[in-house]
Amino acid sequence: MTGTETRAETDSKTRILVLPGSFRRQSFSGSIARYAASVLPEACEVEFAALDELPLFNQDFDDDGTTPASWKTFRAQVAVSDGLLFVTPEYNRSFPAVLKNAIDIASRPPGESVWAGKPAALISTSPGRIGGALSNQHLRQPLSFLNVRILLQPEMYVSDVAALLNSEGELVDEAAKRRIEGYMSAFVAWVAAH
Amino acid sequence: MTGTETRAETDSKTRILVLPGSFRRQSFSGSIARYAASVLPEACEVEFAALDELPLFNQDFDDDGTTPASWKTFRAQVAVSDGLLFVTPEYNRSFPAVLKNAIDIASRPPGESVWAGKPAALISTSPGRIGGALSNQHLRQPLSFLNVRILLQPEMYVSDVAALLNSEGELVDEAAKRRIEGYMSAFVAWVAAH
Amino acid sequence: MTGTETRAETDSKTRILVLPGSFRRQSFSGSIARYAASVLPEACEVEFAALDELPLFNQDFDDDGTTPASWKTFRAQVAVSDGLLFVTPEYNRSFPAVLKNAIDIASRPPGESVWAGKPAALISTSPGRIGGALSNQHLRQPLSFLNVRILLQPEMYVSDVAALLNSEGELVDEAAKRRIEGYMSAFVAWVAAH
Amino acid sequence: MTGTETRAETDSKTRILVLPGSFRRQSFSGSIARYAASVLPEACEVEFAALDELPLFNQDFDDDGTTPASWKTFRAQVAVSDGLLFVTPEYNRSFPAVLKNAIDIASRPPGESVWAGKPAALISTSPGRIGGALSNQHLRQPLSFLNVRILLQPEMYVSDVAALLNSEGELVDEAAKRRIEGYMSAFVAWVAAH
Repeated sequence: MTGTETRAETDSKTRILVLPGSFRRQSFSGSIARYAASVLPEACEVEFAALDELPLFNQDFDDDGTTPASWKTFRAQVAVSDGLLFVTPEYNRSFPAVLKNAIDIASRPPGESVWAGKPAALISTSPGRIGGALSNQHLRQPLSFLNVRILLQPEMYVSDVAALLNSEGELVDEAAKRRIEGYMSAFVAWVAAH
Repeated sequence: MTGTETRAETDSKTRILVLPGSFRRQSFSGSIARYAASVLPEACEVEFAALDELPLFNQDFDDDGTTPASWKTFRAQVAVSDGLLFVTPEYNRSFPAVLKNAIDIASRPPGESVWAGKPAALISTSPGRIGGALSNQHLRQPLSFLNVRILLQPEMYVSDVAALLNSEGELVDEAAKRRIEGYMSAFVAWVAAH
Repeated sequence: MTGTETRAETDSKTRILVLPGSFRRQSFSGSIARYAASVLPEACEVEFAALDELPLFNQDFDDDGTTPASWKTFRAQVAVSDGLLFVTPEYNRSFPAVLKNAIDIASRPPGESVWAGKPAALISTSPGRIGGALSNQHLRQPLSFLNVRILLQPEMYVSDVAALLNSEGELVDEAAKRRIEGYMSAFVAWVAAH
Repeated sequence: MTGTETRAETDSKTRILVLPGSFRRQSFSGSIARYAASVLPEACEVEFAALDELPLFNQDFDDDGTTPASWKTFRAQVAVSDGLLFVTPEYNRSFPAVLKNAIDIASRPPGESVWAGKPAALISTSPGRIGGALSNQHLRQPLSFLNVRILLQPEMYVSDVAALLNSEGELVDEAAKRRIEGYMSAFVAWVAAH
């Protein structure tokens, strides 16, 4: 939400929070996340969560009254969002720590989880053929426990992701673009139904 | 390994690296980890990994030559270890980010993973009844991919963990002590067989 | 649906199909399934699927036009149901074959799956402490792929199940009864919302 | 083992039991399983388990003394085997019932599991890109619990399997042949090390 928007304008928007699983500069998942966000309709207001700035979860921070500012910001971002878009690589047959950390942070303090009932979509990517399928499915277990409503069908696995991008890291493969556009349409309908 | 030990003394020891999944001051998993370590035989040299000090994984650090010192230390700790003891809570039906972060860090740079072939044991804990079973099993997927040789039987789930500790956080339940001692004996035999 | 009911009467009912994961005579899961079914409101018409009568899935049966009658019956039962109640034991840290067989049968022939969009609840049981948690979570993966809408919260794990039953296999533990009643209320609301 | 072999000849052989996950006539997994078996060294004696003939597990059969003959045969096959080769398709993001049924049958009666300590390899296949990765990983959970020693690295996912076969269902893709040969070499070494 930029400072120049009035409250009324913002309220009519559908707020989509993008949660990327990788923050390296040339992240493949980042490329896919940017393309996915770019095809969302005008009525969507998109924000990217800076998950790499969240200190590792430790309950003592909350208990001691030393909750990091970045935790508070992230919890608020999830709380006000109308839909969540996870875009994750696969590291060692599961999803990255940066995502689990974010999930746990916004699930606490006890009784104050901001996840429940949020509609979500989940794209996984990998430079290999399996398209992050194992990351994708592992990620569903904690999210489902937190009552996040993940779009079940279609699924979205992006295989051979490096070959789909140009040297600037932009998605240029037309078939992949069409698949992602279709997935985002399903996501928008899913968010609207909640 | 303390500075006063000679190399010869150290070489005859079995080096066990403990990887806790929680770092809050009164961590239940920390209590169980300390008890488990305390019953290892004299021939074992035990070190606890400070996983909470590892910055979140980002491949750019290695690529830019700005690898954090704590990453280097941790990679070296895994590399010289003879056996690994994971002791994990369950957060939201999976294992904590602090463990996935450590796993991914020591699996890189590409081709330089220090995990392969290490024998490992895995204790999960929870204040509820299921004893971290879902954390326990999720954790096996990335570790197995990295060719970590997890002890398969017995398994070790610690249920109702809060009720097993005294007010100082020390394990006092006799039945739980016996179970953990049995598990650690199996672990020592497992390490010796590798 | 009994033969004496008129179509109009039936149409006003909510049809709940119970899918048990065990068919031994003194099945713990069977006991829990019967109790759970017994507390459903009057407006529900409950049927138990005879999953043990389904021949092991082999696509050749459908391709050859030799589809077993029991497969046809089961597919029709799922198709007309308004809600699904899975009650499963845990065998070797996953769910029984009898359930996977049923899932696969009613997902075929290609394009004719009868699962999509059905609201479902999922109770797991075990004589040990972890309450079938690993069976419970494994079962979610194929069902979610088939777009079955599993109730996410609350979850229902029944630990130490043998101790909750009398010698007739009837659930007699009052606390367990209350928990199951609460779960079934959540299920009924979940079905109504779909 | 054929009737003409003498006991002495048989004893010097390494007995490999192949456990296919599909029994349709033109099964892709069957094609891959046959090729994999064909490249095993002379010293291996290969048997294919008829898992589709095993009645669905029900503990009452054992308790009543009506254990099916096919169960006894299969339990004996596993018991005498020196190594296990699972070749599985993916059905609905998990492995087929025919495999879970076999796993459960040979894990019983209580205390008489014949799985413990057996070295195993695991090939998954799919006509799509993800190569049965989700089937592959799900299958590890019950097998690991039963102390089956699955080869951890390399893994073997066969993607786009239909395109690798000729019209007789024979594997003809040279790159796939080389990958499977490499995997089988690793398996033979794994069996020898146990």
